[in-house]
Amino acid sequence: MSDRPGVYLALVHHPIRDRAGGTITTSVTNLDVHDIARSARTYGLSGYFIVTPIEAQRALVRHIMSYWREGGGAKRVPERAQALSIVREVPSFADAVAAVEAAEGARPVTVTTDARSAGDPRSFDEVREMVRGRTKPVLLVFGTGYGLAAEVFDATDVRLAPVRPGGYNHLAVRAAVSIILDRLLGDAGA
Amino acid sequence: MSDRPGVYLALVHHPIRDRAGGTITTSVTNLDVHDIARSARTYGLSGYFIVTPIEAQRALVRHIMSYWREGGGAKRVPERAQALSIVREVPSFADAVAAVEAAEGARPVTVTTDARSAGDPRSFDEVREMVRGRTKPVLLVFGTGYGLAAEVFDATDVRLAPVRPGGYNHLAVRAAVSIILDRLLGDAGA
Repeated sequence: MSDRPGVYLALVHHPIRDRAGGTITTSVTNLDVHDIARSARTYGLSGYFIVTPIEAQRALVRHIMSYWREGGGAKRVPERAQALSIVREVPSFADAVAAVEAAEGARPVTVTTDARSAGDPRSFDEVREMVRGRTKPVLLVFGTGYGLAAEVFDATDVRLAPVRPGGYNHLAVRAAVSIILDRLLGDAGA
Repeated sequence: MSDRPGVYLALVHHPIRDRAGGTITTSVTNLDVHDIARSARTYGLSGYFIVTPIEAQRALVRHIMSYWREGGGAKRVPERAQALSIVREVPSFADAVAAVEAAEGARPVTVTTDARSAGDPRSFDEVREMVRGRTKPVLLVFGTGYGLAAEVFDATDVRLAPVRPGGYNHLAVRAAVSIILDRLLGDAGA
């Protein structure tokens, strides 16, 4: 994989839909930082961006990272330090795109995901082929709360089909991320 | 699926390996209850057993469940009440097996999972076929901490291959559960 452009992930905390359809900023949770970093590292991702405009929340992310990268956590659980080494906090989705472009020398193809069917989504097979044969970096974009606001979908290239079209779907974002990484990048069950 | 025997899941907190290979009891975490209930419900499981011999921890699980099933949570987020409706706490792995047998009238086929390759594991394709064609209930068994103790493997029928054989593998149990449910029971990417 090292000669190919990287795959990146962004977890967006703003702009996010609330239950009623309004636009909100959700809180960063410690578990989202850890679980998603571990899944991203396991599937070979090059970077994991935590997107929030709130400086105090970005400071929290930096605090978690310094403990696990250099503090007591790094000594106690070195695998965790490896996972958190790919985490980076940025104020906006546009900053995440710009950071990938700066690292890779090419603008990433941006892929959004959503629990609900809407727009003209691509199948997992189609996006898996696209990711496997990529000649540009890929940025996978996940929402928190009740999902990404419309303006994020409007600013991205590809919309991926829901994990479970129809029926009950109330997966935690941490679970949805791990399933989608496995479907797009996994080595087994294929 | 309703005419077929059910698929169940057990999250074991004892007996569990620690980092050094000793046997310990891990703590129940609120997030494991919620995230795994949501994934289990999304993939149509019939029950999710939280296994711990510590009565105070089982009381904690009952407290979480009563809030989300009947308390303020049930009104606010009805999907969560649906997810938690399949959760049940039991003192031991044997109790989980007995509860499935009582509900289904047949002893379940027990399937263990582990992050490390050992024993004679079956491939995901093989276990997926077994689950799809099942004539008996299935109980999927997950460890916490550094994995299930040897005595749990000895007491079970089938050992599933690791999600990522070789390389870095440091998935949260919540992530491993969702990936394995998707590989064995998912409707897409197949």
